[in-house]
Amino acid sequence: MTFHVVDLIRTKRDGGRLPDAAVDWLISSYTAGAVPDEQMASYLMAVVWRGMRPAELSRWTAAMVASGERLDLSGLGRPTVDKHSTGGVGDKVSLVLVPLVVACGAAVPQLAGRGLGHTGGTLDKMAAIPGWRASLAPERMRSVLTDVGGVIAAAGAGLAPADRKLYALRDVTGTVESIPLIASSIMSKKIAEGTSALVLDVKVGSGAFMTAQAPARELAETMVALGDVAGVRTEALLTGMDTPLGRTAGNALEVDEAVAALRGGGPADLVEVTVALARRMLTLAGLAGGPDPADVLAAGRAHDVWQRMVTAQGGDPDAPLPVAPHVETLPAPATGFLRRLDARAVGLVAWRLGAGRARQDDEVSAVAGVRWFAGLGERVVAGAPLLELHTDDPARLATARAALADAVEIADTPPSVQRLVLDHVHL
Amino acid sequence: MTFHVVDLIRTKRDGGRLPDAAVDWLISSYTAGAVPDEQMASYLMAVVWRGMRPAELSRWTAAMVASGERLDLSGLGRPTVDKHSTGGVGDKVSLVLVPLVVACGAAVPQLAGRGLGHTGGTLDKMAAIPGWRASLAPERMRSVLTDVGGVIAAAGAGLAPADRKLYALRDVTGTVESIPLIASSIMSKKIAEGTSALVLDVKVGSGAFMTAQAPARELAETMVALGDVAGVRTEALLTGMDTPLGRTAGNALEVDEAVAALRGGGPADLVEVTVALARRMLTLAGLAGGPDPADVLAAGRAHDVWQRMVTAQGGDPDAPLPVAPHVETLPAPATGFLRRLDARAVGLVAWRLGAGRARQDDEVSAVAGVRWFAGLGERVVAGAPLLELHTDDPARLATARAALADAVEIADTPPSVQRLVLDHVHL
Repeated sequence: MTFHVVDLIRTKRDGGRLPDAAVDWLISSYTAGAVPDEQMASYLMAVVWRGMRPAELSRWTAAMVASGERLDLSGLGRPTVDKHSTGGVGDKVSLVLVPLVVACGAAVPQLAGRGLGHTGGTLDKMAAIPGWRASLAPERMRSVLTDVGGVIAAAGAGLAPADRKLYALRDVTGTVESIPLIASSIMSKKIAEGTSALVLDVKVGSGAFMTAQAPARELAETMVALGDVAGVRTEALLTGMDTPLGRTAGNALEVDEAVAALRGGGPADLVEVTVALARRMLTLAGLAGGPDPADVLAAGRAHDVWQRMVTAQGGDPDAPLPVAPHVETLPAPATGFLRRLDARAVGLVAWRLGAGRARQDDEVSAVAGVRWFAGLGERVVAGAPLLELHTDDPARLATARAALADAVEIADTPPSVQRLVLDHVHL
Repeated sequence: MTFHVVDLIRTKRDGGRLPDAAVDWLISSYTAGAVPDEQMASYLMAVVWRGMRPAELSRWTAAMVASGERLDLSGLGRPTVDKHSTGGVGDKVSLVLVPLVVACGAAVPQLAGRGLGHTGGTLDKMAAIPGWRASLAPERMRSVLTDVGGVIAAAGAGLAPADRKLYALRDVTGTVESIPLIASSIMSKKIAEGTSALVLDVKVGSGAFMTAQAPARELAETMVALGDVAGVRTEALLTGMDTPLGRTAGNALEVDEAVAALRGGGPADLVEVTVALARRMLTLAGLAGGPDPADVLAAGRAHDVWQRMVTAQGGDPDAPLPVAPHVETLPAPATGFLRRLDARAVGLVAWRLGAGRARQDDEVSAVAGVRWFAGLGERVVAGAPLLELHTDDPARLATARAALADAVEIADTPPSVQRLVLDHVHL
């Protein structure tokens, strides 16, 4: 069946809904290059304006999945479950969570994309490990999942190619900010990856894509519904991102911190979010009756899985991580309680120091980033080290420091306690 | 000054207004090819959504004018004034009006584009005259304006090239239907053409782009304001287009009818609209004290100007017009009064018979079209000829006839009298 693209654009522009066959045709024709970028760009802006109704969005997502292969992970001998985060500053949760959930009995096939902007990406963090490779052919992925139980790898070009093309177009046409477009982008990749269950970590706060809870909840509900229609048991947690997670933001710095958590230590906020997500994942995987992930983590039992995972992808888990040749220490400007450490500002600093990319094909620095020595509510002393800026290139320090203005607040009284897990969205 | 296109798209998408320098940069960069189609397409859809504020739209229009040359028509020895119609079925008004206003003492530099869709274009009608050429170099245009006083010619590629590119993009991206985009497209060309005054004929009804009076009035007000800012004295008449104008739709058929009006005859509705527009044009040109155009037209004094205009562009005004090799006559289905003859349906029939184009570079037939033998409210007799379909290609007759279903209504009582000039919009 053939459609006229202009008719479809006009239908969406005027607030109508495309028939299923038109959705299928539009996605497949765009992926094949038969519908040009300028027509899809105006269609996408009309979607930002008019949205998509639930059934239309499910079809749109299914068409994105159908643009490529959908992996079959049945027969692994254990249930599959994955996690996806919408992205936060210092968000190294996957590095701890994947081995932890594997140690508790599930298989975790985490396929990810590269990070863009100030939040960094899981693959970039893993790539700081000497020798580690992100790409993994589907048959090798299956054997690692069988032998080790978990992978963190790059999604291959065959998985939801429509999303790859749409995402690049959205990035340059001001059409990123749309709940149906974000939801379908994330869910098409996760559905295609072949996981049976999925927990979404939807970040909320200054350092997240969603700064307010209401749209974050709407995004979460939209994705949970899409997962359900596609046969993937899906839930979401909303977690706070006004303050960066842990004590580091930057690739090698975060690996180091994740390893500390895997050994049973690590910062309390990182552990709290990781364990909360692990519990939901194990429940969805039908493994709720097993050991509590908090105990498994504290006992260091996930660390062995981590070492096997890293090794299976060519990495040396015992090799020292690279360190930055230039480190600048910034002292606390006053004595008192750390009342605020703005996640967005810290993310921007790490990005400016070289830890993130502005364009899809930029290189990132493994060593660049930020470390801070006090968590929210802790006491700091004027003149004592508060922040460390790490970089390959000292010329970046000045603009990085500029992003810190107003990011830190020290007061005579501690801040009120902020919950990390804000909400739980499920069917 | 350089801008990031994505920032501009996001500003518009979120309901903001671009600074003047950003408008200038966007239009000039797009015209030069530095901003790609997909970014402009999403920007245009955001404009359809959010609109443009008056000052922003004036700047946008000025930037479109500045993308090319603006003709200088001063020193012709008589005032310049032009007319633009938003397009109607059977709208051959320009062919009568331009010579008429010239006969009354003004110079009329009518530069036009080709018609698209079911309403037909003035240049396509003129091109039915043997030998007549639409293109006219600027220096030749000036000499014809001096010697004859009027031209109807194709706008050259140097006039508002931004509009040429934007119009082609809007056509394929569902972004035609936007009052600021329509208004700036029309006005940029008219301002660049160099006329000192302009009367707009904004058509309202089933056969027009605007089917309702409120948006038509908004479009008229928007264009009148844009003309004023650019130093072109501008007014608009809203005229009815539920019924096609005159008794013919099609290129050669309409030239024939226009010549009848120029000789002092022609259908009453055509004469009424033409004279109303001529009076406003002469007033804006400062020639209100001269002879009434109704008398000039009735006396056949515009016909001499017509002959000189046609001759100046290579045409032979005395040569017989081409006629269709296939003519099918359709009888009136009943006896009574013609209560309705739907303009849109007649336009579609003429278009399907070959009189119009679907794409910018299609050829049109000079001879294809429709003639009707009764005007609204006139008596018809069952079985007597009511409509004639003219075509080069008899295979087109069946689909053309199908567009006539429900287009004609014959009743026992005449319809109420419908005014042709519905409103007058001025500062």
